[in-house]
Amino acid sequence: MKEQFATIITIGDELLIGQVIDTNSAWLAQQLNQLGIWVKQRWSIADNADAIKTALDAALISSDLVIITGGLGPTNDDITKKVLNDYFGGKLIIDEKVLSHVEELLSRRQKQPLLERNRQQAMVPDVAEVLWNRVGTAPGMLFQKNGKLIFSLPGVPHEMITIMEEGGLDKIKEVYALPNIQHRTLTTADIGESALAEHIQEWEERLPENLKLAYLPNNGMVRLRITGINHDSTFLTKQIDEEFEKLKSLVKDWLITDKDQTLAAVLRHILYPRLLTVGTVESCTGGSVAKNITSISGSGDYFLGSIVSYANEVKENLVGVPKEIIEKHGAVSEETVIEMVKGGLNKIGANYVVVTSGIMGPTGGTEIKPVGTVWMAVGNKNKIETKLIKARWDRFKNIEYTTQQALLLLIKFIKANEC
Amino acid sequence: MKEQFATIITIGDELLIGQVIDTNSAWLAQQLNQLGIWVKQRWSIADNADAIKTALDAALISSDLVIITGGLGPTNDDITKKVLNDYFGGKLIIDEKVLSHVEELLSRRQKQPLLERNRQQAMVPDVAEVLWNRVGTAPGMLFQKNGKLIFSLPGVPHEMITIMEEGGLDKIKEVYALPNIQHRTLTTADIGESALAEHIQEWEERLPENLKLAYLPNNGMVRLRITGINHDSTFLTKQIDEEFEKLKSLVKDWLITDKDQTLAAVLRHILYPRLLTVGTVESCTGGSVAKNITSISGSGDYFLGSIVSYANEVKENLVGVPKEIIEKHGAVSEETVIEMVKGGLNKIGANYVVVTSGIMGPTGGTEIKPVGTVWMAVGNKNKIETKLIKARWDRFKNIEYTTQQALLLLIKFIKANEC
Repeated sequence: MKEQFATIITIGDELLIGQVIDTNSAWLAQQLNQLGIWVKQRWSIADNADAIKTALDAALISSDLVIITGGLGPTNDDITKKVLNDYFGGKLIIDEKVLSHVEELLSRRQKQPLLERNRQQAMVPDVAEVLWNRVGTAPGMLFQKNGKLIFSLPGVPHEMITIMEEGGLDKIKEVYALPNIQHRTLTTADIGESALAEHIQEWEERLPENLKLAYLPNNGMVRLRITGINHDSTFLTKQIDEEFEKLKSLVKDWLITDKDQTLAAVLRHILYPRLLTVGTVESCTGGSVAKNITSISGSGDYFLGSIVSYANEVKENLVGVPKEIIEKHGAVSEETVIEMVKGGLNKIGANYVVVTSGIMGPTGGTEIKPVGTVWMAVGNKNKIETKLIKARWDRFKNIEYTTQQALLLLIKFIKANEC
Repeated sequence: MKEQFATIITIGDELLIGQVIDTNSAWLAQQLNQLGIWVKQRWSIADNADAIKTALDAALISSDLVIITGGLGPTNDDITKKVLNDYFGGKLIIDEKVLSHVEELLSRRQKQPLLERNRQQAMVPDVAEVLWNRVGTAPGMLFQKNGKLIFSLPGVPHEMITIMEEGGLDKIKEVYALPNIQHRTLTTADIGESALAEHIQEWEERLPENLKLAYLPNNGMVRLRITGINHDSTFLTKQIDEEFEKLKSLVKDWLITDKDQTLAAVLRHILYPRLLTVGTVESCTGGSVAKNITSISGSGDYFLGSIVSYANEVKENLVGVPKEIIEKHGAVSEETVIEMVKGGLNKIGANYVVVTSGIMGPTGGTEIKPVGTVWMAVGNKNKIETKLIKARWDRFKNIEYTTQQALLLLIKFIKANEC
């Protein structure tokens, strides 16, 4: 079976000046990957006719499928639709169904009458198939050339995703003969990438040619992903499962989950079936652990709430940490986080509480407690465990790292100490 | 003056399978932009010798500067260093200074002795200048060809940033004759992109040729950014300031800030000099507003804390919302958010409290209160204001949108109601 390759092209000066982080490419790459299409390259280019045409020429030589996002807005710097219309030799015509959709959406959002530039949103090249954008005014467009599909999608992530989920991905499945591709992912903690690689080297070197291993280190954890491709899906499932079992057994001492899921999802998986609940008391993470836990729909079933005790008065009055403990040992101390767990269990009423107190930087460090010093603790009514970690990065990354480490501490504690 | 163009190349299968979002390109683009170097394109390609060489060939034709990130890790799929060494005709040699740095870093992180693959990290092409990586084991490398600089940097964001901030950016300033480039950015709210474009159309059309306007809509706000370029920096400052003043006056009814800053930074700017404090009581945002406020270093000067009252029991017991109010009107109601403000002011002791309660989806909606329904409120000891908003996206985006709208409500309230 011929492998299918895709190129993702994102258009927009905002990407080239770095004002927007491109999340579209990652989402599209994941979706295509699931379908067995390999993303050969991702290009970000300017809102500029020459750049768009040159990129399209090159993409159509090297790829079977091209997905373009961005440049479809209502303002003057958005020229993609016109350029694509020229490129594919079409004529811009009003699509009446899109027009009434635009009218309806805008009548809900703004009081003003429809502007000419809003009407322009309903213009589409007569050589393109319209892809319905339920949640926005810029329709997706699908062009075909020499049996290859070329998608043009809005750059606003949720509009792009809606269009692909509600029709775009199905088009791809219809048109291309896709191979069988499968992934297995697991997450390890408490072992570095190099040591892990050394530990599984022998197994990795003996992997069949159609299986490939990727290392994905982040936040003190390493994810390992096996990707396999084969024409025979039954054979592939058996083969990849066998190797995955071997891998799991090799890394069992550091295994956190053998599914491709976040720690927040692992937490749900552990707590929900057991009807157990959790809460957080956060100082340095400022609500980030709670935000992470509640990123899961339905987290209300097991997450009760949090106290973000940034100020010491909040630690004392709301959480109930004795004033003397903070005065004697400081807010960033083992003694304080232990009291924060006790107070959290009492005030929030959850089965488990996890707690953070540290210095995220760049300011606030001292010689004894430099930036990056974090005390964490976790407990239930029977037991409290503490941990000291060092975050070694900038504020943003330190908060993310501490958040993930707190979730990890919580998950390991719950597994070891069921209520 | 000749304009200078750059190409950013990010290497790694993890980008092409979408498991990692590329934040490096945005950071690099921002830095280059500040220096007056235009990023012409950003390419993400595979860990593959042919792809790397082809991209380098093409980048060196179209650009004056090439920055490559990724592919320098210690594992088998990281081949960039070897490929670049071949490309530039060098020989890999051990850099003793890097080796002792690697040894020192790893002795702190792992108990095992130095592995052969760790030693490899200290190998560098003899045709490259080593760029010191204070925070990681993979050194940056700087190649030169026909007066053009080619950087090879690790893909781990904080390592890449450290290398550039501690030497890399200075190299660029030394080698290139850079133009004067300036930006002015403001943020508007409560007006859509199209209506805004219509409102400032006349002014925009008369902008001098060397000034360019970009629209950056997000979370119900639109940022406008003027970028100017000129050989005479005094002239440019005067010219861009004049146009920026005109723009500010045109959009004054919707202006939130005339600086390029986040709402969390605007909040600090308002609260800190006035010695005022803030807290949050969050249901549907699950700590996201607090996390956002505490993203600012020094936020402890004005942010006291939060209660994340996800469960109704926490709303009642910790915040003090009367049980009858929730029973009669529901947790997502104007009556409940008013009580949450009162309870928050009382329990947290801040001058201002902002509150959210809504349904972020995809589950939890009802016919009367569909997914996306959010009641927000803000208040001080004298006054409480409420607002009903509709979030129309997926859970992730709904939380982000609600968070930004809550900050916006808070900022507008503080401006209008100083304690």
